[in-house]
Amino acid sequence: MKQQSESWVPIPADSDFPLENLPYGVFRAENGENHIGVAIGDSIFDLREAAAAGLFDRALPDCAPLGAPTLNQLLAFGRATWSAIRVRAKQLLSSDGEAVHRAKNAERMVIKQRDVMLKLPFEVSDYVDFYSSIEHATNLGKILRPGTEPLLPNWRYLPIGYHGRASSVVVDGTLVVRPNGQAKLPDSNSPAFGPTKALDIELEMGFVTGRSTRLGEPIPVEQAREHIFGLVIVNDWSARDIQAWEYQPLGPFLGKSFATSISPWVVTLDALEPYRCPGPPQEPPPLPYLEQKEDFSYDIELQVFLQSAVMHQKHMAPAIIAKSNFKAMYWSMAQQLAHLTSNGARIPAGGLYASGTISGESPDSYGSLIELTWRGTKPLKLPSGEERGFLEDGDTVIMRASAHRDGLPRIGFGEVRGTILPAE
Amino acid sequence: MKQQSESWVPIPADSDFPLENLPYGVFRAENGENHIGVAIGDSIFDLREAAAAGLFDRALPDCAPLGAPTLNQLLAFGRATWSAIRVRAKQLLSSDGEAVHRAKNAERMVIKQRDVMLKLPFEVSDYVDFYSSIEHATNLGKILRPGTEPLLPNWRYLPIGYHGRASSVVVDGTLVVRPNGQAKLPDSNSPAFGPTKALDIELEMGFVTGRSTRLGEPIPVEQAREHIFGLVIVNDWSARDIQAWEYQPLGPFLGKSFATSISPWVVTLDALEPYRCPGPPQEPPPLPYLEQKEDFSYDIELQVFLQSAVMHQKHMAPAIIAKSNFKAMYWSMAQQLAHLTSNGARIPAGGLYASGTISGESPDSYGSLIELTWRGTKPLKLPSGEERGFLEDGDTVIMRASAHRDGLPRIGFGEVRGTILPAE
Repeated sequence: MKQQSESWVPIPADSDFPLENLPYGVFRAENGENHIGVAIGDSIFDLREAAAAGLFDRALPDCAPLGAPTLNQLLAFGRATWSAIRVRAKQLLSSDGEAVHRAKNAERMVIKQRDVMLKLPFEVSDYVDFYSSIEHATNLGKILRPGTEPLLPNWRYLPIGYHGRASSVVVDGTLVVRPNGQAKLPDSNSPAFGPTKALDIELEMGFVTGRSTRLGEPIPVEQAREHIFGLVIVNDWSARDIQAWEYQPLGPFLGKSFATSISPWVVTLDALEPYRCPGPPQEPPPLPYLEQKEDFSYDIELQVFLQSAVMHQKHMAPAIIAKSNFKAMYWSMAQQLAHLTSNGARIPAGGLYASGTISGESPDSYGSLIELTWRGTKPLKLPSGEERGFLEDGDTVIMRASAHRDGLPRIGFGEVRGTILPAE
Repeated sequence: MKQQSESWVPIPADSDFPLENLPYGVFRAENGENHIGVAIGDSIFDLREAAAAGLFDRALPDCAPLGAPTLNQLLAFGRATWSAIRVRAKQLLSSDGEAVHRAKNAERMVIKQRDVMLKLPFEVSDYVDFYSSIEHATNLGKILRPGTEPLLPNWRYLPIGYHGRASSVVVDGTLVVRPNGQAKLPDSNSPAFGPTKALDIELEMGFVTGRSTRLGEPIPVEQAREHIFGLVIVNDWSARDIQAWEYQPLGPFLGKSFATSISPWVVTLDALEPYRCPGPPQEPPPLPYLEQKEDFSYDIELQVFLQSAVMHQKHMAPAIIAKSNFKAMYWSMAQQLAHLTSNGARIPAGGLYASGTISGESPDSYGSLIELTWRGTKPLKLPSGEERGFLEDGDTVIMRASAHRDGLPRIGFGEVRGTILPAE
C-alpha cells in the first residue's frame, strides 16, 4: 500500500479518508444549519465556510451550490465542475495549507467528525434498485423456485431493476423499526398482519446521478461517467415474508419500502478512477446499446458485520458475516444507466441507483441473510453462542467498503449502520 | 343538475369549473414566473397576486405557500388550512367580488386559461401505481395467463401496487415520444431493441398527498382524509412488449417509466366531498387494518377519446373509445394509503398515488387498449375507417373526468391529453 499524500490536517494511517479520497457529505454545523463538507482523516473540511471565504472562487464562478444544505445543486453541474472543485479542495488541504490559514474564519473550516451529526447528503429524487449480481440472482432462483432454471430468461439480456421508495432512504445510524405487514404461512389459507418474521439485509453499492437530462434523452454507455457523481454503500433492508406474499405480479413493494440505509459520504467517481478494473465476461454479448468498450467495474471490497444486543451488552465486537467485492457485478453502472434511459427516462440530480445485492461465488461472500443461511436452514453462529436465520430486535448491522489497488492508498466509504427496534 | 352558484367571474353553463370546484393548478404568469391559481370557468384566479394583496391574511398567517412556484409548500399543511383557503377563495369569487375589486392589482388577479401555459402543479416526491380494479386485474390475468385462475391469490387481501418513476410524471399536453426498448417475440430465441410495437394507455385517477408523516408512522384508514389533498386524472402510458419481457421477477420498469401524464388541475377532496358514495362489496372482509367504516368511493365519470393524425387532418372530432367510473374500484384510496403506510413508510408532501387502470364490467368500459382490443384481436374501428390494436404515431389520447350527483352541479377535472411522436 502506497503512503498517503501529505496534508496539514492530521490523517491516521488506517483512515478511510486520505487526501486521495475527499468524499462529500452534509453535516449539522454549530449554527444549526446543514453544511456541505468533505471528509479528511477524522475531520471534515467545511466547504460552505471555505466558499464563503472566497477559497473556491476560481473553481466555481457562483459558490451558491457549496452553501446549499444538500448536494443537489452541486449535482446539477457536470463532471468538469465536480473535478475543478475536487482539484481545488485537494490543493487547499495539501502540504502546509497556507491559503486556508490566511483566510477569514479559518478556524471554523475544520471540524472533528465525532463532534457533528451527519445528515442524508442529498435529497433522493428517484430511487432504483437493480439486480445485477449473477450469483445473487441465481441463489434466489434456487431458493425461491427450486427445481427450475434459477436464472430467468431475461436476466442475461438486460439489467433487471425496479423503482423503490425515495422518501424511505435514510442515512447511516438511523434506527430501523421492524415493519408490520401481511404475510401468508405456507400451511395457512389466508394471510395475517403483524411484525415481519424474516427481516433481512442486502449489501449493495449505489451511484448518485447529476447533470440532469431531459425526458427523451438517452445516455449512451460511454457517456455514463458524465452523469455519475459518486457512490455510497446501500443496505436495502428487506422483509422476506411480506415480499413473498405481495410481489406477484408487480414486484417488491412494502417488503422493501420501510427503510433503505445509505452511508453518509459520497465517494466521487474521480476518487475511484484509479480503482477501475475489468468486470466479468458477459455471455451472450450485450445488445449494441449495452456494449461497453472500456472497463467500468471497480475493485471495492465489502464487509458486513452483525452485533446482537447480547454481544453489545457483553462488549463483544461486531462479528463479520460476509465479505464480497463490487467488481464481481455482472452489469456495470454504465450499462445500468444506459438501459434505464434507453426508453427516454430522464435523470434527475440526486437520483440513487443501487446495484442489487452483491454476492460472490463462495458462501461466505453472499450479501443477504436469506443466502448466507440458505433461507434459515443453515443459521449463522454468532460469537455469543446465539444463532441467526433472520434479524432479531436489537441486532445492529454494519456494512463497510473500501477501494484497493496495489501501489495505491486504500480509500474507504466509512460505514452504514442500522439497529433494529421492535415493531410498534 | 343543479344550477351553479353565482360568481362575478363569468362561468359558462357547461364548465368543468363552477364555483363549487376551484381546483388548484400552476401556470406561467406574464412575468415568466410560475404562479398558483384556482380554475373558475374559463379563467384562473391568481392566488399569488391575491395573497400578495393581503386577501388571504386571515386564512393563512404566512402567505408564502401561495406565492411558491409549486403546490408543495401548501401540501405540507393539513386539511384545516386547505379548507380555510378554499372557504376564503370561494368567498372572494362569490357574488359581487367587492373585496377583490377594492384590492391593489385586482386587474391582474383573473387571467384567461387560454392565455397561459399550465405547468406540472407539484413536484412529485414519490409515485406509486396501484392495481385496484378487480375487472382490470381479472382481464389482464385472462389475457396474459390464459387457462389459469385470472386473479392471483393475494389480490383480494391487499391493494397490490409498485413504485413508478416520479421524474417521468408530466403535465397534460406534453408530447410522448414512442419509447425504444427490448422486447422478445414469442417465436424468437432472443430479444431485439427498437421502438415499442405495443404502446398503450391506462385510464387512472391519482391522489396527491400532503401533511407529510415521519418514517414509522402508519396512517389508519379513518385518518386518510387528513393526508389526501386532491385528485388528478392519470394516463399511465405503457409499452406492453417491453413490459412483458422485463417484468419477471421485479415488476414493471422501462415499460412504464418513459412518461406518465396527469391533468393540470388538482380537484380537492373538499370539492369532491358531496360526490362520495359506497364502493363495491369486499369479499373476504379486509383485515382489520384495512377495514373501512365510512364510504370512501367517489362517483367520477371517466371518458377516453382517441384522434388519429388522419382524423386530425380531416377535422374529425376525437372518438370516444371508453367510458368508465372511478366508483367501481375495489380498493379505496383510504385503504391504499393505510396499506402503503402500514410498514412505516412515510408520506411526503407531493406524493402521487395512482389507482391502477379503471375498468368496468362491460367491454366498452375497459381503461386500456390491451383490454379494449383484447390484445389486438378485436381492433378498434375509428370513424376515419382506420383500425387500432395499439397506438400509432400521431395518435392523440384525451381523458376527461367529472363528478356527478343528482341535485348538484357537475364538477370536472379538465383533461389530460398526449400525442405520440415517432421514436427517436
